[in-house]
Amino acid sequence: MARTITILGGTGPEGTGLAYRLAKAGECILIGSRDAARAQETAKQLRERVRGAQIEGKDNPSAVAACDIAILTVPFSGAAGLLKQLKSVWKPGTIVIDTTAPLAATIGGAATRVIGVWQGSAAEQTKELLPAGVHLAAAFQNLGAESLAGDEPVDCDVLVCGDDEKAKQVAFELVGKIPGARPLNGGKLENARIVESLTALLIGLNMRYKVHGAGIRFTGLPLK
Amino acid sequence: MARTITILGGTGPEGTGLAYRLAKAGECILIGSRDAARAQETAKQLRERVRGAQIEGKDNPSAVAACDIAILTVPFSGAAGLLKQLKSVWKPGTIVIDTTAPLAATIGGAATRVIGVWQGSAAEQTKELLPAGVHLAAAFQNLGAESLAGDEPVDCDVLVCGDDEKAKQVAFELVGKIPGARPLNGGKLENARIVESLTALLIGLNMRYKVHGAGIRFTGLPLK
Repeated sequence: MARTITILGGTGPEGTGLAYRLAKAGECILIGSRDAARAQETAKQLRERVRGAQIEGKDNPSAVAACDIAILTVPFSGAAGLLKQLKSVWKPGTIVIDTTAPLAATIGGAATRVIGVWQGSAAEQTKELLPAGVHLAAAFQNLGAESLAGDEPVDCDVLVCGDDEKAKQVAFELVGKIPGARPLNGGKLENARIVESLTALLIGLNMRYKVHGAGIRFTGLPLK
Repeated sequence: MARTITILGGTGPEGTGLAYRLAKAGECILIGSRDAARAQETAKQLRERVRGAQIEGKDNPSAVAACDIAILTVPFSGAAGLLKQLKSVWKPGTIVIDTTAPLAATIGGAATRVIGVWQGSAAEQTKELLPAGVHLAAAFQNLGAESLAGDEPVDCDVLVCGDDEKAKQVAFELVGKIPGARPLNGGKLENARIVESLTALLIGLNMRYKVHGAGIRFTGLPLK
């Protein structure tokens, strides 16, 4: 049976963009939302865009219970509450990929600033709120929703951070399914704090240079 | 009379690299060091590498008193002490470019981590320790000493952060004198905290990918 990837926050722009790209790559997608009807509506729209795609919609707990991999794409302000709600739902062995960044916009501030997270990063907060036996990596924070929405290859490296090799490996594989995205080993989960703050920097570059899809590439690495 | 650029910490690898690149571009360089003799020795070695270059060495206070632009390249652990010592020496109108990053290595920790700076960043600490009338920008943090030491074009964008347009303009101009380096508007001085932490991320990439010159390029910007 094909694996199922749940996109938590899949009705938002980042989540919908990732769902679109991964569905196009042949993955079986479950859109998760607080509101099952909205999840189903987004799933229907995506099925219309991707011929033959397997995309359904469910409320968040049902979507988590039914998945092998969950990608967390809710705004940071909603992440901790959602994770507490889901704590007893996770199946052991589920892979979680955290894409969130603690932008100050999440609490009414600027999208060009991050707020301090006691645990060090959004990803480390997520780690604390997941039960044992669930595998976590952080990735995709710097890949903007606007770049994901289209069909062009993205022009961005994706740093994968984590302390769990299995989760990092799955994140690497999923990054590789998005044309133009290059997965890079970002090291430990604690490094997600740097990657998350890069999101704020990229938003600032978008604003100052009046563009929508500033991305990042690392040079000097022995990789194609 | 040609302007003089003082490199504070000019006997260290980052400072020597910047001095070399800027001297090659025709700038008049003063190497600053705690030890005037060491500064003179580094200046002599650089003169041997760059035919016809104007490079002298002085102790830090003398080098600051004699310059139009000062580039701060000392390790972060030495920056605050040096700036306190120099407080009464600065000429009004001097441009200061801070290249430092608060790597944990500066206090015996890892070069892949940054320590928290109360002011928010090394650059903002520097701001606090400079007298009024001195112009500050932050730049060059992500351009490694090894890349600067050679003659190859570097493969790195340089984010220029600051609240002082005059200082940012000078930093932009100096970045443009290093082949391959592209200056980008990094926004306010407070954003230096993100750029400084990127240095730690690049050092981690160097270690994980066994290279010495990982750099960064931003994509999706309307610039060549």
